[in-house]
Amino acid sequence: MPRMQMAVRQPMPGAVPNMSYAGYSGYSAYSGTYSAAADPMWIYFTAVAGQDGEVDAEELQMCLMHSGISGTYSPFSLETCRIMISMLDRDYTGKMGFNEFKELWAALNAWKQNFMMIDQDRSGTVELHALTQVIAAMGYRLSPQTLAAIVKRYSKNGRIFFDDYVACCVKLRTLTDFFRRRDNMQQGFVNFVYDDFLQCTMAI
Amino acid sequence: MPRMQMAVRQPMPGAVPNMSYAGYSGYSAYSGTYSAAADPMWIYFTAVAGQDGEVDAEELQMCLMHSGISGTYSPFSLETCRIMISMLDRDYTGKMGFNEFKELWAALNAWKQNFMMIDQDRSGTVELHALTQVIAAMGYRLSPQTLAAIVKRYSKNGRIFFDDYVACCVKLRTLTDFFRRRDNMQQGFVNFVYDDFLQCTMAI
Repeated sequence: MPRMQMAVRQPMPGAVPNMSYAGYSGYSAYSGTYSAAADPMWIYFTAVAGQDGEVDAEELQMCLMHSGISGTYSPFSLETCRIMISMLDRDYTGKMGFNEFKELWAALNAWKQNFMMIDQDRSGTVELHALTQVIAAMGYRLSPQTLAAIVKRYSKNGRIFFDDYVACCVKLRTLTDFFRRRDNMQQGFVNFVYDDFLQCTMAI
Repeated sequence: MPRMQMAVRQPMPGAVPNMSYAGYSGYSAYSGTYSAAADPMWIYFTAVAGQDGEVDAEELQMCLMHSGISGTYSPFSLETCRIMISMLDRDYTGKMGFNEFKELWAALNAWKQNFMMIDQDRSGTVELHALTQVIAAMGYRLSPQTLAAIVKRYSKNGRIFFDDYVACCVKLRTLTDFFRRRDNMQQGFVNFVYDDFLQCTMAI
């Protein structure tokens, strides 16, 4: 199966003033009129989605492997594919349609580019401090304690692997989105009810 | 290496009135004076902990495999071992000492007993509604929407596997503990600052 190349549509997001907690902008949804069948990604998607037109985590893992988005890096783990679906699964069906798949694809390409910039020897891993720098460069404003806890959580034998780096990016984006949607005044704090807090955080 | 049997010290926690969000009681810490060297678990722990006396996620995975706690179920995934450490890693070192290991052991034994009660054919998997029932029986008070989202997230091909069930239990306990520690008045809602919210949720 041929490998695809797709232009990165989103530069590394920068800091946004007046938003104390994160400057990470969302990826624009793919809307408007276009023919999905003419899209080169359609073939990968439909090959695994089947008749219902949606993919679950196992199917997404296969789809991403066939699409070659990991490049020379190891394929994504099932766990990372599960949280990728959670990131965009706004109706909690546990599945992803073609539009969500394309939104994910754009995010993955941007994250991969960032990773390749710091993985200069193409070992597939980077040092811990490099992840800290990337998180800051993406516009997240976090304390040194929180950054240290994150880096520790996603490291393995003192290095950050591509799959764990992507899992970290998926979670950062999703949890920040959850928070921001509830922070109507953009003040950096939210009053969470327990059930809502668990619904947000258990799915990711 | 011989397999261990250890009495379950904790019954399935029941609902606690006057706590609207969860009745899940914490496991009591192992304190007091006792000789660790005389403890049958010590041998498994020290075999992998090395000189620093603590285990990281990879070492924990090996330790749990050697201890035989999974019984006939598949060994725990590295991802599940990581969040097991996060559950008890209150100083964010990414490692676990012997006391934390014993606390984890007691929790795992209780969860395993609950799972075996619903996995009557010993297939290593249970149906989705069974997980919902176990969560309710453990005393968590969650809406049907949140329960549905959780069950979807931890299922694979329409079933719940033991490793995912434990991951779900670890997260439920940890996130509830995070929430409860900040809910001083036990009212069921907490005002989270963004950085604290991410520190809680990214590590798990």
